[in-house]
Amino acid sequence: MRVNAYAAPAAGQPLAPTTIERRDVGPNDVLIAITHAGICHSDIHTVNGDWGPQPFPVVPGHEIVGTVAEVGPDVTTHRVGDRVGVGCMVNSCGHCANCRAGDEQYCLEGMVGTYAVTDRDGSSTQGGYSTHVVVDAGFVLRVPEGIDSASAAPLLCAGITTFSPLRRWGAGPGKKVAVVGLGGLGHMAVKLAHALGAEVTVLSQSLKKQEDGLRLGADAYFATSDPDTFSELAGRFDLIVNTVSAVIDVDAYLSLLAVDGALVNVGAPAEPLSLNAMSLIGGRRTYAGSMIGGVAETQEMLDFCAAHGIGAEVEVIPADQVNEAYERVLASDVRYRFVIDTATLA
Amino acid sequence: MRVNAYAAPAAGQPLAPTTIERRDVGPNDVLIAITHAGICHSDIHTVNGDWGPQPFPVVPGHEIVGTVAEVGPDVTTHRVGDRVGVGCMVNSCGHCANCRAGDEQYCLEGMVGTYAVTDRDGSSTQGGYSTHVVVDAGFVLRVPEGIDSASAAPLLCAGITTFSPLRRWGAGPGKKVAVVGLGGLGHMAVKLAHALGAEVTVLSQSLKKQEDGLRLGADAYFATSDPDTFSELAGRFDLIVNTVSAVIDVDAYLSLLAVDGALVNVGAPAEPLSLNAMSLIGGRRTYAGSMIGGVAETQEMLDFCAAHGIGAEVEVIPADQVNEAYERVLASDVRYRFVIDTATLA
Repeated sequence: MRVNAYAAPAAGQPLAPTTIERRDVGPNDVLIAITHAGICHSDIHTVNGDWGPQPFPVVPGHEIVGTVAEVGPDVTTHRVGDRVGVGCMVNSCGHCANCRAGDEQYCLEGMVGTYAVTDRDGSSTQGGYSTHVVVDAGFVLRVPEGIDSASAAPLLCAGITTFSPLRRWGAGPGKKVAVVGLGGLGHMAVKLAHALGAEVTVLSQSLKKQEDGLRLGADAYFATSDPDTFSELAGRFDLIVNTVSAVIDVDAYLSLLAVDGALVNVGAPAEPLSLNAMSLIGGRRTYAGSMIGGVAETQEMLDFCAAHGIGAEVEVIPADQVNEAYERVLASDVRYRFVIDTATLA
Repeated sequence: MRVNAYAAPAAGQPLAPTTIERRDVGPNDVLIAITHAGICHSDIHTVNGDWGPQPFPVVPGHEIVGTVAEVGPDVTTHRVGDRVGVGCMVNSCGHCANCRAGDEQYCLEGMVGTYAVTDRDGSSTQGGYSTHVVVDAGFVLRVPEGIDSASAAPLLCAGITTFSPLRRWGAGPGKKVAVVGLGGLGHMAVKLAHALGAEVTVLSQSLKKQEDGLRLGADAYFATSDPDTFSELAGRFDLIVNTVSAVIDVDAYLSLLAVDGALVNVGAPAEPLSLNAMSLIGGRRTYAGSMIGGVAETQEMLDFCAAHGIGAEVEVIPADQVNEAYERVLASDVRYRFVIDTATLA
């Protein structure tokens, strides 16, 4: 099946319309007619070659929402016409300890990313900037009523990436949570932490987005460019979710944690980070990392969002504005996620 | 009350016999006739000036066991003749959130160390290389039957420092625990993790102490100087307790952790450490630190050790061999803790 898509032809080249081949629908597969695909900063890193050589042409997109168009004979979990989503992974071995524990993202044989990697059948995966995709039913999520499709798309990456550490490190009533950075991930972290019942503080470079932050659910907002912020908030937080991919002063952020507090990175700077062991020892503090979430946990996040009326703040664009959108993401000029209306690819 | 002691007269000077003043027994105080005092590596760092200027003369020693000689009128928890212990701290504010939570070691006003710091009454604390000490009853532990006093002394620092993270990070049946370094702290970590029911692996520079390690309770023993160790053990452990104060390759040790595993430093190198955020993110791993334990937890540790017949492996020395013992500690020539027989100070 040949379908329309937007692809990067080579590293650093603008994306352009093309067609790609989608595999036949296998017994366990779901064919999805895509309606929306979010633009994640990692799409840009990938096509720019920041993360090493890629199997160009690359069709990015791992925040996918659409409608089931066909299912294989063995699929029992999804039916034609269902509204569904696909996130950052489309396959895993299914039998290792991590897969069995519902942590498919940490599959010991390597989870299969939604685009630009080799699938288990040897083909290259291609992402959601496309009209259709064929995905193993085990990696297809139900998008519940109560969230519009455009606002749901970014939940599949930005939503689960922040929901998972918030849940795992106990964000909830009586807990003080800080979110570092108010971008695509950060704005979801604020909404989710607030809905989970935590007291939420945004730590952003400046106060430029303060009004937004408070509207999204933050109780407080501080500029990290102001050195007083670090003395004023010393020892305050139970959990800090760092959504920023730049190198940070880890010791300074650890100093904001109470005893047993955790700083959790969901962004990964390419350069190594430096920290002093005493920053951990002096308060039994934790520095941790977290990467998306498992399939069941992603479904739980979607259901939670629907129950709480939470979606991403999005700007919907036609596919031919994707290169301009990339420029604006790099300039932090988006509040808070671009989503491609893939009907414009038809 | 003037009592005999061994003190460092100045930074880097050999310790020598002297007398020091102990305060009068206040309403909540316990006067302890010391019988044993362990030698901790941090005693050496302190008197050598490695950790900055000190209020010389300094009497080190924060692994203290003795007998209650007198109690103040308000003391209800200890009686004359009881065998008791004192660890790394002798006071704290008692009313901050951390003290109220039983984490006196993280007192927000600063816990009072057993020696070389200013006590809450303005005097300098002096440690256990001495015949007597006066300590607030709230920081005096009961040493239960079943552990001899010399073997009990190191439990007050080396024991609690390793017990606390083992308990907090879930060392127990079905868990794979690695201990980095087989010194004073490491040998206690092995004994305790084994008694808690975990599968224990020692990661030591060489295989020199392998026989000891297995005898102390380890199930396996690997040399970290062998690069194959890191590939062979990749992704294996739920918990790694790092007892080494030298700078380590944090990323290499994190790679030995399973998903959700934790690397916990109880030793603190002076230099900053470097790590790659992906080492954490790629397996939802944790890098944490831990410092001794609270008073109640220290008592729990002593009771646990008595119930399991666990004490430190010690070499008992007279006080006049303390300088020689320091040299041997620096040369890693002790299995595994020197303990001063303080009767030799009388």
